[in-house]
Amino acid sequence: MTPVKVGLLGLGTVGSGTATVLKRNAEEIARRAGRGIEIDFVSTSKSELPSGLGLANSRISADPFDIVNDPEISIVVELYGGDEPAKSLVLQAIDNGKHVVTANKALIAKYGNEIFAKAQEKGVIVAFEAAVAGGIPIIKSLREGLSANKINWLAGIINGTGNFILTEMRDKGRDFEDVLKEAQALGYAEADPTFDVEGVDAGHKLSILSSIAFGIPLQFEKTYMEGISMISRDDVNYAAELGYNIKHLGIARRTEKGIEQRVHPTLIPKRQLIANVDGVMNAVLVQGDAVGPTLHYGAGAGGEPTASAVVADIIDITRALTSDPENRVPHLAFQADALSDTPILSMDDVESAFYLRLSALDEAGVLANITQILGDSSISIEAFIQKETKISDGKADIILLTKLVNEGDMNQAISKIEALDVVSGAVTRIRVENLS
Amino acid sequence: MTPVKVGLLGLGTVGSGTATVLKRNAEEIARRAGRGIEIDFVSTSKSELPSGLGLANSRISADPFDIVNDPEISIVVELYGGDEPAKSLVLQAIDNGKHVVTANKALIAKYGNEIFAKAQEKGVIVAFEAAVAGGIPIIKSLREGLSANKINWLAGIINGTGNFILTEMRDKGRDFEDVLKEAQALGYAEADPTFDVEGVDAGHKLSILSSIAFGIPLQFEKTYMEGISMISRDDVNYAAELGYNIKHLGIARRTEKGIEQRVHPTLIPKRQLIANVDGVMNAVLVQGDAVGPTLHYGAGAGGEPTASAVVADIIDITRALTSDPENRVPHLAFQADALSDTPILSMDDVESAFYLRLSALDEAGVLANITQILGDSSISIEAFIQKETKISDGKADIILLTKLVNEGDMNQAISKIEALDVVSGAVTRIRVENLS
Repeated sequence: MTPVKVGLLGLGTVGSGTATVLKRNAEEIARRAGRGIEIDFVSTSKSELPSGLGLANSRISADPFDIVNDPEISIVVELYGGDEPAKSLVLQAIDNGKHVVTANKALIAKYGNEIFAKAQEKGVIVAFEAAVAGGIPIIKSLREGLSANKINWLAGIINGTGNFILTEMRDKGRDFEDVLKEAQALGYAEADPTFDVEGVDAGHKLSILSSIAFGIPLQFEKTYMEGISMISRDDVNYAAELGYNIKHLGIARRTEKGIEQRVHPTLIPKRQLIANVDGVMNAVLVQGDAVGPTLHYGAGAGGEPTASAVVADIIDITRALTSDPENRVPHLAFQADALSDTPILSMDDVESAFYLRLSALDEAGVLANITQILGDSSISIEAFIQKETKISDGKADIILLTKLVNEGDMNQAISKIEALDVVSGAVTRIRVENLS
Repeated sequence: MTPVKVGLLGLGTVGSGTATVLKRNAEEIARRAGRGIEIDFVSTSKSELPSGLGLANSRISADPFDIVNDPEISIVVELYGGDEPAKSLVLQAIDNGKHVVTANKALIAKYGNEIFAKAQEKGVIVAFEAAVAGGIPIIKSLREGLSANKINWLAGIINGTGNFILTEMRDKGRDFEDVLKEAQALGYAEADPTFDVEGVDAGHKLSILSSIAFGIPLQFEKTYMEGISMISRDDVNYAAELGYNIKHLGIARRTEKGIEQRVHPTLIPKRQLIANVDGVMNAVLVQGDAVGPTLHYGAGAGGEPTASAVVADIIDITRALTSDPENRVPHLAFQADALSDTPILSMDDVESAFYLRLSALDEAGVLANITQILGDSSISIEAFIQKETKISDGKADIILLTKLVNEGDMNQAISKIEALDVVSGAVTRIRVENLS
């Protein structure tokens, strides 16, 4: 059988990784797919392609639209990232009846509903395993491997840079800013690190996971996102003292009122396997009603790990080329006409436990005042630590762990605590999840 | 579209779980599959089916061949386990052009090559996700999710009973026999526990994983299997002292000489995530050349977790009903005519590090004798502990960790050590893997 012809949009880290993997494992891949896979056309501003990538016979063009409009190409692999020109290219490729593989989480999170509708209309596949958690086959596991289950919740470490920073802060007692600079120097974090450390990247990925777990349309705009820039070394240490690690989690949970979709730093008991996922690694914990908990762990970024997912999608499409479109795995796991309108909850309606850290004058009655405020809002205290008073300012750190409370109630109580004369500065507030 | 009609062979734990999941999640499953799934025919010796399983309209027969020969049935689900009548039923179902889902690892490990050849001839699918690691979608991850990779090795905790026993021995200082009795009482272990504790069950599963990872025919008969019954509480404690947990692992590794396929107790560094997979849980660590390490964790047994895999397979088949047989995912991950004849290595040719424990008289020169023997075989020592001499017999436990050595050489050296007058009894020998 003639090889499947692929057009590659972008030859950066993931694009080069994709070409490298397809070349190095060509024999292995053909034995699996039953057919060769050939990168026939590459978009690049360069006048020739780098050697060693097996692209000696590939055509090149500086205009990516040449590729999506080329009649020879069956599968377009979009690796530009971001909104444009990625979105126009993908829509044009679909319009031309081509299948698409993309690693672009922002594109799928923001425009996936529109893109999948068009793909369905044209009978083509848009595959996006590489958009979430790099090489971990989590999209496939949720859409197919766990398809018997009603998913109750999932929680993921889905941004490697953030996890690297928190791991270094804990293991080496370093400060956030310091580690962030190293991550940038190592090439983990973007020069503008906002997407990583403010939770936007994780938010894109979580909204995709949430959609395929619960059968709801993509709703990135309703995702709550909180970053890790306010986490101090003290918080990391106090959490450890209480038996927790702090992780930047994306959490999606089905409740009776609607769906929680939130990204934020979270205390997790150290005994949980996912609390021990360190460095740049990613992991997603999924709770299904039949299977119970499953954990999916691996490299969440990098050229070849992401290429692993891109190429797996290409192989899947190669195998599915002759199957009837209506019998394929639906883009969002559930049939397009069977998505549900379960609402995404506002954070005020989300219930969780909290870690609170505050600095207070070491005076009689301080603790009584604080516990009074919490008690008035029916917030129970699970654990409490008062650290030694600092001689410099006569203040002491007070750390509290609460039981489950509505976030709206917690925020009101925090405002009251911050208004106390003896309490200085803001109360640091980190959510706690037992994940069991 | 009319529902797909399923025939269920066996209504034990997994059969009841399958019916329960299909009933409870019927709406969710139909939204995913695009079509309902109905258990139309059940084989049971009872005159009526238990209520509450959604089987009120199902036909029943005491003769399972009535089901595999029934023209209404599209998918036969075989949950008898063991060799016969499972094998004859599956072959007959295939002969009749029916797709098959099975949770039967012994059947696939021993007769898979024959079964898949017949399935290919007839153009039907035999799906067996439930045969390995229960609800963890590890077959799908290896066959599809990681299909871009050359798999270098995999290592799995794939027998929950064995892992439960080792966890209890470590955490509660209990003896093997004692925990085994509890596992039997809890229903984890079979009344005849040989399959669990002697590694046969794990051997069945490992030979399946090895085949789909490396593209070789199933070769259960060449799998090396060693159980956990010789592991003592002392070994568990000494391993912990050295920074290791003992796990019963199935390991498949590609080497230049051939493929290692072995099941045995193994020391793993505690810092490894898989070393912390405890109790009845399963996990498989896979090392791919592009993706790096991925870990797949979840429940390896039990009614609903196993049903999760069975039902996912039914959904996959439902979706694939109209696709061309030659474009489906191959049974053993690689196209049937592209399997390789890479040999499975004999254990003598397998290289690993070793933990050795021996009891010796506390005399001058004992250690010199032992290290001399190891040195003569070019076996380097990585760590060494001599415990206190017991007053009762004047003997002391000596524990050694070696560096990498060929198993054949290790066995020869052990024979020489055991022949020393000052060494009493056999040398306990456990392999060590760093899994990195």
